[in-house]
Amino acid sequence: MIIVVSPEASPEEIDHIVARIEETGRQAHLSVGTERTIIGVIGPDAPELQDMFETMNHVESVHRVTKPYKLVSRDFHPPDTVINVGHGVTVGGPELAVMAGPCSIENEEHILSTAHAVKAAGANILRGGAFKPRSSPYAFRGLGEDGLRYLAAAGRETDMPVITELMSVRDIDAVAEYADIIQIGARNMQNFILLDEVGKVRKPVMLKRALSGQIEEWLLAAEYILAQGNPDVILCERGIRTFETAYRNTFDVNAIPLVKELSHLPIVADPSHGTGKWGLVAPVARAAIAAGADGLMIEVHPNPDHALSDGAQSLTYESFTKMMRSVSGIAAAVERTLSGVGAPAAAR
Amino acid sequence: MIIVVSPEASPEEIDHIVARIEETGRQAHLSVGTERTIIGVIGPDAPELQDMFETMNHVESVHRVTKPYKLVSRDFHPPDTVINVGHGVTVGGPELAVMAGPCSIENEEHILSTAHAVKAAGANILRGGAFKPRSSPYAFRGLGEDGLRYLAAAGRETDMPVITELMSVRDIDAVAEYADIIQIGARNMQNFILLDEVGKVRKPVMLKRALSGQIEEWLLAAEYILAQGNPDVILCERGIRTFETAYRNTFDVNAIPLVKELSHLPIVADPSHGTGKWGLVAPVARAAIAAGADGLMIEVHPNPDHALSDGAQSLTYESFTKMMRSVSGIAAAVERTLSGVGAPAAAR
Amino acid sequence: MIIVVSPEASPEEIDHIVARIEETGRQAHLSVGTERTIIGVIGPDAPELQDMFETMNHVESVHRVTKPYKLVSRDFHPPDTVINVGHGVTVGGPELAVMAGPCSIENEEHILSTAHAVKAAGANILRGGAFKPRSSPYAFRGLGEDGLRYLAAAGRETDMPVITELMSVRDIDAVAEYADIIQIGARNMQNFILLDEVGKVRKPVMLKRALSGQIEEWLLAAEYILAQGNPDVILCERGIRTFETAYRNTFDVNAIPLVKELSHLPIVADPSHGTGKWGLVAPVARAAIAAGADGLMIEVHPNPDHALSDGAQSLTYESFTKMMRSVSGIAAAVERTLSGVGAPAAAR
Amino acid sequence: MIIVVSPEASPEEIDHIVARIEETGRQAHLSVGTERTIIGVIGPDAPELQDMFETMNHVESVHRVTKPYKLVSRDFHPPDTVINVGHGVTVGGPELAVMAGPCSIENEEHILSTAHAVKAAGANILRGGAFKPRSSPYAFRGLGEDGLRYLAAAGRETDMPVITELMSVRDIDAVAEYADIIQIGARNMQNFILLDEVGKVRKPVMLKRALSGQIEEWLLAAEYILAQGNPDVILCERGIRTFETAYRNTFDVNAIPLVKELSHLPIVADPSHGTGKWGLVAPVARAAIAAGADGLMIEVHPNPDHALSDGAQSLTYESFTKMMRSVSGIAAAVERTLSGVGAPAAAR
Repeated sequence: MIIVVSPEASPEEIDHIVARIEETGRQAHLSVGTERTIIGVIGPDAPELQDMFETMNHVESVHRVTKPYKLVSRDFHPPDTVINVGHGVTVGGPELAVMAGPCSIENEEHILSTAHAVKAAGANILRGGAFKPRSSPYAFRGLGEDGLRYLAAAGRETDMPVITELMSVRDIDAVAEYADIIQIGARNMQNFILLDEVGKVRKPVMLKRALSGQIEEWLLAAEYILAQGNPDVILCERGIRTFETAYRNTFDVNAIPLVKELSHLPIVADPSHGTGKWGLVAPVARAAIAAGADGLMIEVHPNPDHALSDGAQSLTYESFTKMMRSVSGIAAAVERTLSGVGAPAAAR
Repeated sequence: MIIVVSPEASPEEIDHIVARIEETGRQAHLSVGTERTIIGVIGPDAPELQDMFETMNHVESVHRVTKPYKLVSRDFHPPDTVINVGHGVTVGGPELAVMAGPCSIENEEHILSTAHAVKAAGANILRGGAFKPRSSPYAFRGLGEDGLRYLAAAGRETDMPVITELMSVRDIDAVAEYADIIQIGARNMQNFILLDEVGKVRKPVMLKRALSGQIEEWLLAAEYILAQGNPDVILCERGIRTFETAYRNTFDVNAIPLVKELSHLPIVADPSHGTGKWGLVAPVARAAIAAGADGLMIEVHPNPDHALSDGAQSLTYESFTKMMRSVSGIAAAVERTLSGVGAPAAAR
Repeated sequence: MIIVVSPEASPEEIDHIVARIEETGRQAHLSVGTERTIIGVIGPDAPELQDMFETMNHVESVHRVTKPYKLVSRDFHPPDTVINVGHGVTVGGPELAVMAGPCSIENEEHILSTAHAVKAAGANILRGGAFKPRSSPYAFRGLGEDGLRYLAAAGRETDMPVITELMSVRDIDAVAEYADIIQIGARNMQNFILLDEVGKVRKPVMLKRALSGQIEEWLLAAEYILAQGNPDVILCERGIRTFETAYRNTFDVNAIPLVKELSHLPIVADPSHGTGKWGLVAPVARAAIAAGADGLMIEVHPNPDHALSDGAQSLTYESFTKMMRSVSGIAAAVERTLSGVGAPAAAR
Repeated sequence: MIIVVSPEASPEEIDHIVARIEETGRQAHLSVGTERTIIGVIGPDAPELQDMFETMNHVESVHRVTKPYKLVSRDFHPPDTVINVGHGVTVGGPELAVMAGPCSIENEEHILSTAHAVKAAGANILRGGAFKPRSSPYAFRGLGEDGLRYLAAAGRETDMPVITELMSVRDIDAVAEYADIIQIGARNMQNFILLDEVGKVRKPVMLKRALSGQIEEWLLAAEYILAQGNPDVILCERGIRTFETAYRNTFDVNAIPLVKELSHLPIVADPSHGTGKWGLVAPVARAAIAAGADGLMIEVHPNPDHALSDGAQSLTYESFTKMMRSVSGIAAAVERTLSGVGAPAAAR
């Protein structure tokens, strides 16, 4: 940490800052310039220190020089993390992970027939919501534990691992029992108690970025999970909130290569939420893979205009199949594979 | 709800949309123009309908004409809600509520002496964090239940109701036992399970706006609590996340008069988080009261440069006392009172 | 400027960075720590240097320690700047400046009667648009030079200085001839050629903040004007663009005290654009004055539902008069005056 | 336009709204429901009407049902526009346009050698700035007309059309003389006078999206140019301003397929500004092409750490060549061509 002291500070005031640094068990290294004195703080960085020094008299600015996360950083663990999620599927390796299925599980038949359809089109992980976060208390909030059972059965039947969202510590045992991957939704990215708890579970966790989550905050949220002993975290970029109202969210494609640079964790893309409009899902899916994403999460529904949630962003079986074929060509161009898909088709 | 159909739709396609409306148990009212057909949907509005209709062929746009919340709306309950929070203090009436205290409770003596100091300056509610949400897993996360006990004792000793944050369903019994007002933090505004649970408790709840929470989402979050039977919700504007990096958050003063227009619930302002810089706290506190806020929440610490969290935005006893005197003049100008404060002092 | 070098840099690579610093005519001051080497750059700061150093191998981060503006900064010129704008009116002193009038000048009678009305209510500067920036090429774009003449005549008749927007270098002579204050609109905040040109004119300039203008960029835009020799710049906060769609813009009240701290220039508030809804104008006007603004700019129209532009945010004569009385009480509480207004009235 | 009237409106008040609609020369079509009356406004839409009606008593909301632009819309002109920019290069057809070169032209030799290098790597349009918008008045602002001459000479020498930015009406003749494509920068997207003027020129115009420009505003800005008679507008997505500080701008990949759906105009991507970090340029370039962009604009500099501007986001000759080979594979996957590039290379 570097502290820049304003030109008006007296030697006594600088001594006071140095003393405060030493009180915290760190050392101070002074660099006295003609205009400003710059103090290097030597010792472990702690998040609260920046705040603390900024309040002091004559401190002009405080600059952090180290990253606040450790276990998730590429410096700490240079090779890519590859996560085995069951049924022979991995996330983070050359083969792309494609998680597909309905926003909400509506009944046993619905999730099973969707599972067969997405598998046929090349998906290798089945998604489906049993506990749904909804803006309004009056909206459909999912089938709960029944939904979990239907999902797990559909996964077994089609030989695919399943992923579903955990919304609360209350449901952790049920979700961990049925799911192969536990999803933490965007609204819970900084639900720190929930992060602690999934950190103690022996199941891979997919952590979505919050609507206004900065990359650094997102990596720190992943750090919560790793710090509790669970190394299997998949990040998921799902669009951020901006001033633009033409789409539900703005998919942040920059995040993909930057996260790859900063962290060893795999990252997948959710263009369904990232756009909120089914017509934009396929081009943004292609973009994400071209930028280096390790996979996709896509909402698919047999009949989107009858979906109980998120119809506007769901693909039909037919449009999903078409999307997969166009993604396949992109995958090849970036040396990734999509094993379940037929010959690549042109995107346009 | 109004559905605008594109000019290319055939009569059969329009019939299909009408049939879909009728399937949901609602009625369709057609208005055929020279260019476009407009369909009014008559019957109860449901959040999922907009999405559903937007996916249909030839639907150009769907417009909601009713608000998605009910119990929190001013239409439903025209008079201002005034909430009794104990120790003779109300929120929402002519007397302003001033919640003050440290970000984190650090020890028994610390919260008690701060309580005496803020009470002397005119605060009427004591705040203090026992469970702290922190971006980093390595930061100080609060004293937990010990903190709750120290806080409650300091409230009794100084005859003030106390407010503290509840982060998880896990801690609801403990927090409800010690706190007079339960705070739901910005990161949990859409932690819907937690909202359900505090809706079942018989204690007032203060609901902070999320970093990127739209007014409508915030009111819907409050609706969750009222829908479970708890009518005593206080809203708290605490700054939103924008592109501006000169402050930690951007205090949204527009929200205060708009929330007053849309809802009967009281709203208080937190300029400490709303700015993140102690030098801006007093002017923004004055602004909030001038705009119609029902009170303030202010971080005060005996020695901000030794605070375990949020030092940069905490006021000292002295600066808090000065702020209260300047707010007092503003309160008088908008016909509100601040009973514990001496003669109003000029702001500059 | 401080350059943080990553731990992997070899001594030769550090030498290369030092050489590059010296090539620019500056000196390097090394501070070798156990983990990182930190290089202080001694000599004048230049905006391009940060970029340049960030591209170099093994440079982890570059931190600016000085502000990029000079003439506008409070360090350079500690006392408040007070600008004489004619007809005995000043901006930046104890008396508040109140600029009021229609968004667009619609005809001679319209601006004259509005001038009389706003003056009667206590305004001391007349505003009116002759050249109007409009999102659509098909919207009413103002009366042009005829409008300027009507405005100037109305100002003379009512003994008020007038302010109007200059949109292009093309119209600078005409606007400078008729206006007492030249307004640079939000969309032109970084129209650098226009800033250069108004910097050469001997008239006060009011510079609005851009929709997504950071405080630092805004002050740099003002620096452009001062750098050309025109010291009379008034800043105007008019709301920023955020994710919130409940209002046209989000008025950034934090900006007022922060700009006062960083700069000696006066700052006024435009709650008409800052909210876009007439019902929010008065409370936000009060908030701005409570936060320390030096004045207000308010859209007033005899008949807002017949206005040719911005009707939704315009006050009627009656609501403007009422607003002025409520602002007057706030002004008194912050030791400012509003000389043309009768006895302060309560705000609620 | 649809006007929703609140339940409390009396028949007389509804008549008043209808009369106001008829005053504007339009017709009103009433649809009286049990709760609300809905009024359809029949006749040409005008941007000011929404505002006007929203101010009227008992109007709850006003909904536009037509798009505010016409000439740029895909409805008006269904086929893709393909623009001939000279030297046999087109923008909008199957062959991708790749505009490459330095941010600023530094001297004659510098632009010429860069031109040779980018041409060799497969670029087909040469970019270079002669008039540079800079946040600070003290930064290097370009060589002006000398720069234009060097640029045009380098284009002739390498047989490539050239593109450069026009910042002000003042320089329009000079820029139009030397440039094959006139660039309007992000900060001038709503400099409406400048848009009018380039609309009168017979040269293709590339219009960058503003930092906080909504898609609708951007298309309206293009409409300004087409409305003056110039049909040759290329749109350029260059990143928007969000809360994320890890990159200079957030490249909005959603904009590409949405613009393609709404408009017939070609759209290119600028990942150099869209990320601000050279390490992210290649993956985001690939993403843009995968999403359907018609081309790229890339900053290339022989020696980025000596660049006079934007060094941090410039590619070297070597990294540009590598990027082009990886983009080539993506182009093939979406049935586009990049004729100047050798065999496609893998992206990773």
